[in-house]
Amino acid sequence: MPKRGKFIVLEGGEGSGKTTCLNYLKEHLAGELAIYTREPGGTPLGQKLRVVLLEKGEGDLDPLAEMLLFVAGRAEHVKQVIAPALAAGQHVICDRFAASTYAYQIVANKRPEWEELFNDLHHAILKEAEPDLYLVFDLDPKIGLARVGERRGESTRFDDKELPYHERVRQGLLTFARRAKGHQIIEANQPAAIVRAVALKAIQEIIKL
Amino acid sequence: MPKRGKFIVLEGGEGSGKTTCLNYLKEHLAGELAIYTREPGGTPLGQKLRVVLLEKGEGDLDPLAEMLLFVAGRAEHVKQVIAPALAAGQHVICDRFAASTYAYQIVANKRPEWEELFNDLHHAILKEAEPDLYLVFDLDPKIGLARVGERRGESTRFDDKELPYHERVRQGLLTFARRAKGHQIIEANQPAAIVRAVALKAIQEIIKL
Repeated sequence: MPKRGKFIVLEGGEGSGKTTCLNYLKEHLAGELAIYTREPGGTPLGQKLRVVLLEKGEGDLDPLAEMLLFVAGRAEHVKQVIAPALAAGQHVICDRFAASTYAYQIVANKRPEWEELFNDLHHAILKEAEPDLYLVFDLDPKIGLARVGERRGESTRFDDKELPYHERVRQGLLTFARRAKGHQIIEANQPAAIVRAVALKAIQEIIKL
Repeated sequence: MPKRGKFIVLEGGEGSGKTTCLNYLKEHLAGELAIYTREPGGTPLGQKLRVVLLEKGEGDLDPLAEMLLFVAGRAEHVKQVIAPALAAGQHVICDRFAASTYAYQIVANKRPEWEELFNDLHHAILKEAEPDLYLVFDLDPKIGLARVGERRGESTRFDDKELPYHERVRQGLLTFARRAKGHQIIEANQPAAIVRAVALKAIQEIIKL
């Protein structure tokens, strides 16, 4: 049986540079047996839910429904994509995972009463695939939102929320990551070359273990 | 403030006649202030999920994802449609609700370990809208599936499951209904005119309360 792969998650608020960094990582980890995926998305169901969850204009989604759709997509994603890849010895590098749901749907949406439900929901999911490393691209949302403003067109329903919402997202990501099995916080307000180098090094160290 | 409406749910396995009966009820309750809705469905999100959940051919959906999608649609349905209607004094007559999720996704899918999660998920939802009456159209699935076989074309992913699955659905619906706040079991293997009359009478009695 091949050695189990490592599961690495990139997390960060709007404009934190994680997705750009992911493209850099793909190139520089080309020698590794790894797959790159994202949430929401990553499976045919996930793609459909991604449209429902991120598109604008149909009025507010009920917050509980929103959280459950993200978790439903995750359950499918883990079962169909992530867990099989890890078992086959591939590393999995994923753009957003459980920390995002915690930060956006619980902390930023101010629903602390759902934290236990969130944990129960993830109990079954994480048994099959628990991230070895959460890489958090930490950035003052004032800077992140200004960056996003410069690349309109790709924006989602979540980009339009107010600043305090994004400040709660930031805190939520940090809180979640610090409780996770493995985490590293990257100060994302540095030159992109440094951010990329730090991310690559962190991943290479985990992969070596 | 208007008197709160009553919330009545029709439940039954494949071919049990509940949907046909619903059309009859619509006509004969025309004098009542009532709305008719269904799950999955009932909201724009629900319609999208209905397609994802019922269509055939994309391989098996992860069972946990399946359950969460049904519950997510329900959260939205209750918030946007059912709870506002009840508060406005309208009766709500709904084709399938929580009993179906329990019967199909927990009992028929053999996932007793999710029962607590199911209850926790419904705690928040039922606070806003708990059915006053579950009307269960009870039928031996051998008969129900034979009926469904005669009207091919409308069939869903769930119609194709094996007989033991549908027998578990039947038991799950009965178990759930007997624990609910209000329920009535209708023997659905009687002439349609009798089934309809029993259903109409049960609803009229609840509405009068």
